Amino acid sequence: MGKQTFVIVGGVAAGMSAASRIRGLKKDAEILVFERSNYVSYAACGMPYLIEGKVSSSKDLVVYDSRFFKEKRNIDVFLHHEVVKITPTTKSVLVRNTETGEEKEYSYDRLLISTGARPILPPIKGLNLNGVFTLRQLEEGIAVYDYIGTKKPKRGLIIGAGNIGMEMAEAFSARGLNVTIVEKMPSILGSMDDEINEVVEEELKKNGITLIKLKAVVEFAGENSVVKEAILEDGEKVQADIVIIGAGIRPNAEIATEAGVEIGQTRAIKVNERMETSVTDIYAAGDCAEAYHLIYGRNVYMPLGTTANKQGRVAGENMAGGDAKFIGVVGTSVFKVFGLEVGRTGLTEKDAMREGKDFVSNVIEHNSRAHYYPGGAKIKVKLIADKRSKQLLGAQMVGREGVSKRIDIFATALSAKMTIDDIANLDLGYAPPFAPVYDPVLIAGSELLKKFESIR
Amino acid sequence: MGKQTFVIVGGVAAGMSAASRIRGLKKDAEILVFERSNYVSYAACGMPYLIEGKVSSSKDLVVYDSRFFKEKRNIDVFLHHEVVKITPTTKSVLVRNTETGEEKEYSYDRLLISTGARPILPPIKGLNLNGVFTLRQLEEGIAVYDYIGTKKPKRGLIIGAGNIGMEMAEAFSARGLNVTIVEKMPSILGSMDDEINEVVEEELKKNGITLIKLKAVVEFAGENSVVKEAILEDGEKVQADIVIIGAGIRPNAEIATEAGVEIGQTRAIKVNERMETSVTDIYAAGDCAEAYHLIYGRNVYMPLGTTANKQGRVAGENMAGGDAKFIGVVGTSVFKVFGLEVGRTGLTEKDAMREGKDFVSNVIEHNSRAHYYPGGAKIKVKLIADKRSKQLLGAQMVGREGVSKRIDIFATALSAKMTIDDIANLDLGYAPPFAPVYDPVLIAGSELLKKFESIR
Repeated sequence: MGKQTFVIVGGVAAGMSAASRIRGLKKDAEILVFERSNYVSYAACGMPYLIEGKVSSSKDLVVYDSRFFKEKRNIDVFLHHEVVKITPTTKSVLVRNTETGEEKEYSYDRLLISTGARPILPPIKGLNLNGVFTLRQLEEGIAVYDYIGTKKPKRGLIIGAGNIGMEMAEAFSARGLNVTIVEKMPSILGSMDDEINEVVEEELKKNGITLIKLKAVVEFAGENSVVKEAILEDGEKVQADIVIIGAGIRPNAEIATEAGVEIGQTRAIKVNERMETSVTDIYAAGDCAEAYHLIYGRNVYMPLGTTANKQGRVAGENMAGGDAKFIGVVGTSVFKVFGLEVGRTGLTEKDAMREGKDFVSNVIEHNSRAHYYPGGAKIKVKLIADKRSKQLLGAQMVGREGVSKRIDIFATALSAKMTIDDIANLDLGYAPPFAPVYDPVLIAGSELLKKFESIR
Repeated sequence: MGKQTFVIVGGVAAGMSAASRIRGLKKDAEILVFERSNYVSYAACGMPYLIEGKVSSSKDLVVYDSRFFKEKRNIDVFLHHEVVKITPTTKSVLVRNTETGEEKEYSYDRLLISTGARPILPPIKGLNLNGVFTLRQLEEGIAVYDYIGTKKPKRGLIIGAGNIGMEMAEAFSARGLNVTIVEKMPSILGSMDDEINEVVEEELKKNGITLIKLKAVVEFAGENSVVKEAILEDGEKVQADIVIIGAGIRPNAEIATEAGVEIGQTRAIKVNERMETSVTDIYAAGDCAEAYHLIYGRNVYMPLGTTANKQGRVAGENMAGGDAKFIGVVGTSVFKVFGLEVGRTGLTEKDAMREGKDFVSNVIEHNSRAHYYPGGAKIKVKLIADKRSKQLLGAQMVGREGVSKRIDIFATALSAKMTIDDIANLDLGYAPPFAPVYDPVLIAGSELLKKFESIR
């Protein structure tokens, strides 16, 4: 057998993790990575902080550049190269150099589709005006940063009150902009429950952010091709010198569909725990693919950088002949908005209702540190558990400190399918500067147990 | 059946938790708590911070006073009352009022021994000099605070480099004292491994603390009954105007022994998961009792406030006729020393060796936040896992931030008997201000997995 060729379509988190893992296992294989943009292996989640000015240079967001991969790992990265067709019958890809327009065919033994996702563009007129941005590729983050520096916008508008919307509200605010968020749904952070959302809304208000809910933007109007205002569905106008569209993302799965690769109900690429698609020798990983959810018990679409990295590594190992499994996700995410830390894992109450689960839930508030130790803050914790088995289904938290890693305690408990009894009895670390004797995690557990007792 | 009488011997963490739980389940029972000292239900762990000046008043450390228990929970608390004898045959206790010397007998239906622990006093001459303190009861913490305020000591000496020794070094330093720690063992933090200890020693040095290891103090010498210096076994002298003895604690189990209650090999009171002792209707909980350790698989003596609270609650529930279980501990503890957070859970390498375990261990260092986000710090993580099953046996961490709750992720994993594969695949929260894409917890897991692969 000659030298094996591995082709990677898309070189960000999943793609470069896979490529590196393949190289680790196959010293003499040929590894070709085709990346449409100008960057590989960048930290997309860092863009709000680049724009905010907390990151000194966009270079800091590039984990490794293409030269590093060539020199240190002998991985051939083709920037500005787009794979336009995958032909499983001949095991080849057609690749276009987006700078020259030249097209060339490459053969593969095994292929990874790691094409990521793209922003959902709501049906709004004037999306092409200058000053209207999406935030997906690093180039876009840099463009927003430069636009603020050179055009000095005064009023920032954010479409969508999800995690990115929150982070961008803080970033714009830090750059001195007056910020408005428009969310067409009844609540912010669609995925979270009201007890958490109300705390976040209060924090936005305290920081001078205007939040408009239950209204869609229908048009951006401008002067000399530069955005000046947004027109809402009821005719209300919101002035804006810069706009970020943060209305979610959808998987880049078209090229997979055309190649005959099965797409899941989520519209992302269907994969098994080995990250194999329905087509032999074609794997998928990252934001274009589904992930198995340990609590839902089925594949979901929850694109996140951590998952992309892990899936890429599993795909790479299996492509190189190994036998790795991506165990699954439990839906953990955290974000910072002004002085708040917000986290979730597993199912919210809304999720549990949608799933028809029979559940019990409870909300508590407790100190992050011993009450007498300075600097502590209240943490709000919501837990949801299965009514019959008492198995934890999900947790949500919000507070000024101590949320981001405490949510991971619940994420770990979800993975282990722990019950609320297990959680209330955890042997957690205690010292006055870090926690009260009864940590908010334990209080949340024991108070939910009391609720179970009261309904028995 | 008439009104039941519950007697609690010792009213701090375990005792008052039990009393409160009994009252919650038995509205008309008689609940008598006898407490030798002047306080019930105080936060003993807060004393170093009281001395440091971070806690504004000693009153802040008293969670509830005896009046609260009488008025709100109808629990009769007798301060300055010492139980001098327990007679199981007649189900009675003999109690001495330590202020008047009066003795009185009380009958019980069920009894809890929650007598706590007392400081181990090393064989040093001159322990009775003024300025030599132990730190166990709240009165002692207040006395140290007052002594510093009135006598203005310049040089503080701490005997023992355990958690309390570390916290007191910081407290003395904050009050402007020159601090020396003398530890007779070869390493500080007896329970931790060298990779962690070396970081802590460096931090002590950076903060001007003198550490003397492998030497015992044999005598305190004074002038006019006030301590002036300590004399080490090799004749070296260390000047000291105030001394804290932090050489560990031992269980107050004598009264239990005299009553015929079985004592474990640890010298603490032997209990089952219901917190029952070997004698019918006598329970024990807190620092005088053993605790089942989920990783050792046997009872151990690891006195901690969190355990005392949980054991007290379980004892109270069972004394009142319920059926609660204390599942066990995994040996989690955290402390702060100057700019460092230090944590451990489960077995150290030293512990694993002593147990004759066949294990694999590894140490990594990784960022607490995304590398480009300001304010992060390196965290050092040591993991120990069973060589055959890959089950996690223990974790230790040290760093300038992000340790205290990350250690709880491992504590949860230990409770769930997770393997290193499980840990490397955890779905932990990620956002640049709080964690890198690969959290130190995940890196520690995947690097230990690589070590497993390399020895296969």
